[in-house]
Amino acid sequence: MSERTKYLLDESQMPKSWYNIQADLPKALPPVLHPGTMQPVGPDDLAPLFPMELILQEVSTERDIEIPQPVQDIYKLWRPAPMYRAHRLEKALGTPAKIFYKYEGVSPAGSHKPNTAVPQAFYNAQEGVKKLTTETGAGQWGTSISFAGNIFGLEVLVFQVRVSYDQKPYRRAVMETYGARCVASPSQETVYGRQVLAERPDHPGSLGIAISEAVELAAQRDDTKYALGSVLNHVLLHQTVTGIETIQQLEMADVQADVVVGCTGGGSNFAGIAFPFIGQGLRGGKMPRIVAVEPAACPSLTRGKYAYDFGDTAHLTPLTKMHTLGSTFTPPGFHAGGLRYHGMAPLVSHVKELGLIEATSYTQGECFAAGVLFARAEGIVPAPEANHAVKGAIEEALRCKREGRSETIVFNLCGHGHFDMVAYQKYFAGELTDEQYDEKELAMALSGLPSVPSNL
Amino acid sequence: MSERTKYLLDESQMPKSWYNIQADLPKALPPVLHPGTMQPVGPDDLAPLFPMELILQEVSTERDIEIPQPVQDIYKLWRPAPMYRAHRLEKALGTPAKIFYKYEGVSPAGSHKPNTAVPQAFYNAQEGVKKLTTETGAGQWGTSISFAGNIFGLEVLVFQVRVSYDQKPYRRAVMETYGARCVASPSQETVYGRQVLAERPDHPGSLGIAISEAVELAAQRDDTKYALGSVLNHVLLHQTVTGIETIQQLEMADVQADVVVGCTGGGSNFAGIAFPFIGQGLRGGKMPRIVAVEPAACPSLTRGKYAYDFGDTAHLTPLTKMHTLGSTFTPPGFHAGGLRYHGMAPLVSHVKELGLIEATSYTQGECFAAGVLFARAEGIVPAPEANHAVKGAIEEALRCKREGRSETIVFNLCGHGHFDMVAYQKYFAGELTDEQYDEKELAMALSGLPSVPSNL
Repeated sequence: MSERTKYLLDESQMPKSWYNIQADLPKALPPVLHPGTMQPVGPDDLAPLFPMELILQEVSTERDIEIPQPVQDIYKLWRPAPMYRAHRLEKALGTPAKIFYKYEGVSPAGSHKPNTAVPQAFYNAQEGVKKLTTETGAGQWGTSISFAGNIFGLEVLVFQVRVSYDQKPYRRAVMETYGARCVASPSQETVYGRQVLAERPDHPGSLGIAISEAVELAAQRDDTKYALGSVLNHVLLHQTVTGIETIQQLEMADVQADVVVGCTGGGSNFAGIAFPFIGQGLRGGKMPRIVAVEPAACPSLTRGKYAYDFGDTAHLTPLTKMHTLGSTFTPPGFHAGGLRYHGMAPLVSHVKELGLIEATSYTQGECFAAGVLFARAEGIVPAPEANHAVKGAIEEALRCKREGRSETIVFNLCGHGHFDMVAYQKYFAGELTDEQYDEKELAMALSGLPSVPSNL
Repeated sequence: MSERTKYLLDESQMPKSWYNIQADLPKALPPVLHPGTMQPVGPDDLAPLFPMELILQEVSTERDIEIPQPVQDIYKLWRPAPMYRAHRLEKALGTPAKIFYKYEGVSPAGSHKPNTAVPQAFYNAQEGVKKLTTETGAGQWGTSISFAGNIFGLEVLVFQVRVSYDQKPYRRAVMETYGARCVASPSQETVYGRQVLAERPDHPGSLGIAISEAVELAAQRDDTKYALGSVLNHVLLHQTVTGIETIQQLEMADVQADVVVGCTGGGSNFAGIAFPFIGQGLRGGKMPRIVAVEPAACPSLTRGKYAYDFGDTAHLTPLTKMHTLGSTFTPPGFHAGGLRYHGMAPLVSHVKELGLIEATSYTQGECFAAGVLFARAEGIVPAPEANHAVKGAIEEALRCKREGRSETIVFNLCGHGHFDMVAYQKYFAGELTDEQYDEKELAMALSGLPSVPSNL
């Protein structure tokens, strides 16, 4: 066999710092606004929820931010993550393109999420925090922060959306294996949860309610903070280990990326693979095409408005400028739970506005078909979220076939689907529908965007 | 960090041949007997079920058997598999021992099983076979042969024990993702299945019945063969890639194994890690202590009799000399489904009789406690089967602590537990009981062992 299948880096080649795209942006990110005053927030406004080191990372413009040694030591449990050449997928497609994928499913939690869960837990522990609260939908993030909290001796309380809590008990079992406590939200543990349950005892819950519960507890106590798994700048920063490694691995393979593909929900796994490539381009190196793939049922980048909006439904969070479907928009129920968010990370939205990335969307049926094709060719069964990146990469490879071009396509396979097989089951049973959002509801949600001072 | 966490081999260092322990045994393996004549079988007797290349491997005494290039190409999708130093587990135990684990959960199916599924599918395809039949309990083997069959263009039909089929639909979804057909056994697809269902329409099935159904179909047609995931010599042979790689990785770490630990059900993952070490010892190198760990509820090596017995309940298979609890013995229901077999691989039994290995047993409660300790230290959530190896390694590490010895302990973490979280759930809910087998039933099963000619 002349060409390799896997490109592995040695532990000594693992990145020693994260890449902060804010150092290279031609235009600075718009400020975050206080929900009460509508004026830019300062670090102290965020201090009740996050440790100071993460708040400083949120606004830093330093290019390379050192990965603390204890975080590196834990990263080594699974990092550097492998990059694969998808020889068999190329053959199945009959494409002259070279397809590479970075695989983040090798982490203990099975996705890219521990890349940020571990440093978040570390900085919290370092600043004396004893307990983390968070929310989770399908459970990828809850699993990751449970794993990371255990490592650094933090108590972890996860509010899991009631409907997922009941339907996906295995994710909860993983969280418990890592020693975390996982409660169904709405819960009796918070004022807000009790209020919701009083109105409707059988409430199925929502990510918005779970966030409110987690934030409420964190805000009350000095030794308790809140952790978020996507959207924020520091979360995206931590994910850049993925792209930095991938650039090294492509050098091993003696190729340069022509197209980089990632799926986008909150934006963190996409930023993780994309930002180091964009940074290289902004500093004078080759700038590949960067393609963000989102679900057609929740298309913030392709159908949303670039505007200031709240991060949650209850309007307790600060406002950020982002591509949003409106904070009251409820995406239809589809299986890529990690992509069901009304807004897009401010940094991803910003690079989209700067014309540095493209965006496209596909239905879940198209994405599952792509995932099954991938599994049969490459063996790995992708998570429903990752299927969007697979679909995007396959479409690029088929374009190369039509155009007779042997471009190099790289995508981030951000996680495996071992805990999502119920979705594949429905796909094979023909029960997977292509949920459409309601156009009227979207128009209404967009018309209700908050007013902010006209200079922002 | 002075010491490494992971020991990765490059694809170029992947073994080019399997290690056949039959070349180095001080005493040859007793022959396999025909169930009708009770005389040694020849290759032709097995030809209806297996391709000739596998039958020849079954009886070969060549030391190194070349891994065909197409099999190597597929192995490269996940092999060489990583070996880890369990720094955090050592610290948690406070042991001076060095603990290393080989991790086979990186395969697409999540266990060691594809190591043999891939060559089995390859040799069948090479000899013109169109379809494979097999049985599966929990689903690890069924998943692996589905993956491998798809790779080499074979149709795969998996008979899954009815109770698992109903209780663990996610494994079936993985098999379907790989394009296999999975039916509940007893089924309407075989004479034997229909007969069982006629007597009891709601029969929950058993591995014995599923084997009979798979064998029945394979025996009927020239283009259809049967595949078995453990026990047979060729299956154990294919698994030796694990131990061969581990020996290389220990050299990278500049240590030699003092103790090698593996869990034992049918014996294949144990043989995979152990045989290359035993071979090294038999050829004059260092011979480590080799410890086989089995479930207390199905203790063939520690409580069984070394005698000729049938491989199945219906007494259709050839007889092999092995440690057996009697072919009519029904192990109680515990969660390490891969270890619920009345017999032990003839080769593993043979090396036990030769005094080359030790055996020990633990209850499932002890093993899950070990697995949770491991997951919290190392991140990976082990399969219930693998928890037995974890428990064995921890016990050795604690012995080293008591004795103040810094021995090197190596174990095979043969798979992850992503599809077995229901067992962890029960463990945390306090619902996991330590099932005991019935002593009277064991005595009766052992008293019913078949009579064979006295010279064997």
